[in-house]
Amino acid sequence: MSHTSDFPTHWVLTLSCPDRPGIVHAVAGLLAEHGGNITESQQFGDPDSGLFFMRVQVTSTATRTDLVTAIEALAPRFDLRWHLDVAGRPVRTLVMVSTAAHCLNDLAFRQRSEGLPIDLVAAVSNHTVLEPMADFYGVPFHHVPVTKDTKAQAEARLLALVEELDVELVVLARYMQILSDDLCRRLEGKVINIHHSFLPSFKGARPYAQAHARGVKLIGATAHYVTGDLDEGPIIEQDVERVDHSRAVEDLVALGQDVERRALARAVRWHAEHRVLLDGRRTIVFR
Amino acid sequence: MSHTSDFPTHWVLTLSCPDRPGIVHAVAGLLAEHGGNITESQQFGDPDSGLFFMRVQVTSTATRTDLVTAIEALAPRFDLRWHLDVAGRPVRTLVMVSTAAHCLNDLAFRQRSEGLPIDLVAAVSNHTVLEPMADFYGVPFHHVPVTKDTKAQAEARLLALVEELDVELVVLARYMQILSDDLCRRLEGKVINIHHSFLPSFKGARPYAQAHARGVKLIGATAHYVTGDLDEGPIIEQDVERVDHSRAVEDLVALGQDVERRALARAVRWHAEHRVLLDGRRTIVFR
Amino acid sequence: MSHTSDFPTHWVLTLSCPDRPGIVHAVAGLLAEHGGNITESQQFGDPDSGLFFMRVQVTSTATRTDLVTAIEALAPRFDLRWHLDVAGRPVRTLVMVSTAAHCLNDLAFRQRSEGLPIDLVAAVSNHTVLEPMADFYGVPFHHVPVTKDTKAQAEARLLALVEELDVELVVLARYMQILSDDLCRRLEGKVINIHHSFLPSFKGARPYAQAHARGVKLIGATAHYVTGDLDEGPIIEQDVERVDHSRAVEDLVALGQDVERRALARAVRWHAEHRVLLDGRRTIVFR
Amino acid sequence: MSHTSDFPTHWVLTLSCPDRPGIVHAVAGLLAEHGGNITESQQFGDPDSGLFFMRVQVTSTATRTDLVTAIEALAPRFDLRWHLDVAGRPVRTLVMVSTAAHCLNDLAFRQRSEGLPIDLVAAVSNHTVLEPMADFYGVPFHHVPVTKDTKAQAEARLLALVEELDVELVVLARYMQILSDDLCRRLEGKVINIHHSFLPSFKGARPYAQAHARGVKLIGATAHYVTGDLDEGPIIEQDVERVDHSRAVEDLVALGQDVERRALARAVRWHAEHRVLLDGRRTIVFR
Repeated sequence: MSHTSDFPTHWVLTLSCPDRPGIVHAVAGLLAEHGGNITESQQFGDPDSGLFFMRVQVTSTATRTDLVTAIEALAPRFDLRWHLDVAGRPVRTLVMVSTAAHCLNDLAFRQRSEGLPIDLVAAVSNHTVLEPMADFYGVPFHHVPVTKDTKAQAEARLLALVEELDVELVVLARYMQILSDDLCRRLEGKVINIHHSFLPSFKGARPYAQAHARGVKLIGATAHYVTGDLDEGPIIEQDVERVDHSRAVEDLVALGQDVERRALARAVRWHAEHRVLLDGRRTIVFR
Repeated sequence: MSHTSDFPTHWVLTLSCPDRPGIVHAVAGLLAEHGGNITESQQFGDPDSGLFFMRVQVTSTATRTDLVTAIEALAPRFDLRWHLDVAGRPVRTLVMVSTAAHCLNDLAFRQRSEGLPIDLVAAVSNHTVLEPMADFYGVPFHHVPVTKDTKAQAEARLLALVEELDVELVVLARYMQILSDDLCRRLEGKVINIHHSFLPSFKGARPYAQAHARGVKLIGATAHYVTGDLDEGPIIEQDVERVDHSRAVEDLVALGQDVERRALARAVRWHAEHRVLLDGRRTIVFR
Repeated sequence: MSHTSDFPTHWVLTLSCPDRPGIVHAVAGLLAEHGGNITESQQFGDPDSGLFFMRVQVTSTATRTDLVTAIEALAPRFDLRWHLDVAGRPVRTLVMVSTAAHCLNDLAFRQRSEGLPIDLVAAVSNHTVLEPMADFYGVPFHHVPVTKDTKAQAEARLLALVEELDVELVVLARYMQILSDDLCRRLEGKVINIHHSFLPSFKGARPYAQAHARGVKLIGATAHYVTGDLDEGPIIEQDVERVDHSRAVEDLVALGQDVERRALARAVRWHAEHRVLLDGRRTIVFR
Repeated sequence: MSHTSDFPTHWVLTLSCPDRPGIVHAVAGLLAEHGGNITESQQFGDPDSGLFFMRVQVTSTATRTDLVTAIEALAPRFDLRWHLDVAGRPVRTLVMVSTAAHCLNDLAFRQRSEGLPIDLVAAVSNHTVLEPMADFYGVPFHHVPVTKDTKAQAEARLLALVEELDVELVVLARYMQILSDDLCRRLEGKVINIHHSFLPSFKGARPYAQAHARGVKLIGATAHYVTGDLDEGPIIEQDVERVDHSRAVEDLVALGQDVERRALARAVRWHAEHRVLLDGRRTIVFR
């Protein structure tokens, strides 16, 4: 017998699987059997990877247990990878920063004032300059210094925090330190970085100086998942800003801050709303 | 018994109906029963109008007759308004122009070189200056002069052409003549106009002169369905271009041509790909 | 005898006058006589208004007194309106807010981290919710409640603050109160407002609700000088953001915050860098 | 004695030289002595290269000879590199194409309808498919086949055409052939290429396939001067277009055509209006 609550919950279900007929019908059937009313849904079949992706928002009075049981029963037939969550539930997020404040300020502000569905459970920094800002926004601040000798120790501290605080998402908000391959692997798909260039242009250090030297007419920023392969992780969002010859490198840096925080905020929002699905080196973004 | 062809067809089905549980399941079920494999699908429920919208692309070996029969059987249960077409089939299109060439040139060029799925069955103009361009692109040209006295006659000629040529879409590509209310009603949902302003700014005549006088920093264009209410039809697409103080009215006109043709081309493409659904005064665009 | 300092100062000189031959030569000559080296300069003659506009950045060891004396001697010949300032000097700015935090946060953050050349000497609000944010950024906060009966009194308080604090620029950062005609006139050319629509679309109240009802595909914001004629002051900057059918009014409000703060920040920067000159109802922006 | 015509000519003068005080004054003085009225002017000093750049539009009744004589007399004092032209004079342009029509169509259309100040004196192609389009626009078409063995011969033919036709600008409008180093050097500063990527991303072959594989969220195009160093010439203009996961490589190619022609048309316009000055590997664009 199926237990239900009196009030419907707004669920978001995402899934991917090898593409084959009948998936949508099976999933829609499962949801209909649980009194679900689909409010928003998107599907996409990638002809290159042969994978099918689906994101569906549905209101239903069914319990989580009932839905999970039903999905688990369906999963083997289609070889589903899936995720079920309450729509709009704030994702527990840890932000790593160094000394640049713009991304932290932007995420914290949007969380507070623009309904960005994250819960900032910790700010971790190898410096202390952003502690007052974290305090102002009520985000617990952890100073974890990093030197060549203490890097392993610092990463262990980070992993401990991730575990203790049930962190679901780590955001590298201009953290400026390279994570070890091992850490990248352990947190794969859970770490978003903002790179201050329009990747794959200007990989590596000092991208704005490179952009200035090359005389580009647009500068950009790229939000991507972090993988072991530096600056090569799946891209979630990119944006650009027009510049001209009169801009010095430091102007590009200041202008770039705007593009960086915009691209990062969108990537974090889409991730937190379960709109981003991985398709090999690429992302599916159901906006 | 269901007849099928040996090779699957790529269908596109769009529908709208009052929002209610079970629609997606029912439609996905219908498609699954006909061996359909969904390649792309989007749904949206509008909380304001209470309507549900769906667009699905599906490959299936079922015949058109079988699909139509099945959809017709389903329609009353959900009060469906629906449309079934072969994906990518060129839509029979009549373009109305006056003397400005940029929109005609753009649509004809994109039809030929960028896979815009329209079939330009006629160009109708109250002038003859664009006849050589129509000839170059192989579009039959019809000169239908319009004066105050012959307006009714000219519209009758247009309607006759629409009927004779099985026209599915009429594009007002800077036609500069106002259609009668009666004609608008007869062709409702089948006529797309490009308005040379960012509506609802600068309705009426000489929008670029108005924009210049007001000192705006962006100029725009709006592609919309034509209704009896001038400049008030449902908007399909809008775009803008940055301008500055140094631009004279004639510069805005030239710059505006670019925005106009871009916005119009997108609107025509989305309409021809059955991505635009009407939701009262607004449009749903499943891009 | 001309006194000079040992180190050159970076000056910015702006001027406007009736257009006539010889202006640039005369100004450049004046600057050359004072050992000036022009680093950036722009001129524009408006054929409509018949006015000529010039902005020049110049390094010179001449004193302010010497430069002013020379410009004053030249001014009558060309009927010059002019302004001389040290380039990059922070402009003394008073921000008026109500309860929406995004514009205040953005301006204060950019002042601190992105070199926005303003000095936030006061935040004035008819509410107290933004007092902690003002405190965090070290901006003196003044609570000036406004009711129908106390409006005159509140405006007198504002004017007193403007005088006491040598305020050069007042920014209405989503202040939501209409200033009296008298106040507008007194502070003409010194007050920048951010309007939450792409003017002249959606003047008046609740522009996002109007935009939603009209089904526009881009929403915008407009930063403009305040004049007695509400929503009709000279436009400094506008920007837009793409939206689609799935966005509810509250989504437009949240998305709009981003456009609003971006357009406002640019307008404030250009004003503070003396890049904006008035040309009747329009602005010249020497970016 | 100075000869003047009865009607003033609108001149455009561009110059660059080592940065030093007095340049603007000297140039403005020279123009004033010839009755010049400056209508538009921009200056920029590049602190990196130490060069100063100026573009000035001026109306004057002085003859070309008189102006040239005066400029030649001034040039040694400041080590000027300069160019004087009649504003708006169409620049004699040769377009090289292969089989893709969009850039040729766009340039020819804008020349005819949007006041692009070029005179299309020849279209050169290694194929014949675009001959009818060249004919339609009245552009003399030259079929110059290129094979590995005939490349030197083909380039000689091109150079001969450039000479015979007094060609001032060569546009590689998706020509798809690499010019020899020698040719690049001979025509340095006179050849504009449109590259179908957002350089420096995706240099080399098949940039859209590379962009698709990398999963970028914006595709772009770059118009640049051609130098011996392939894809490394000074950038004049860049633009981008948003794409998403659902776009196949062929969609990117079609979408990219729009960005390519837009970026190329702007670069050609700015070059033809003498708004682009070379500053080492970078360009100054006085828009």
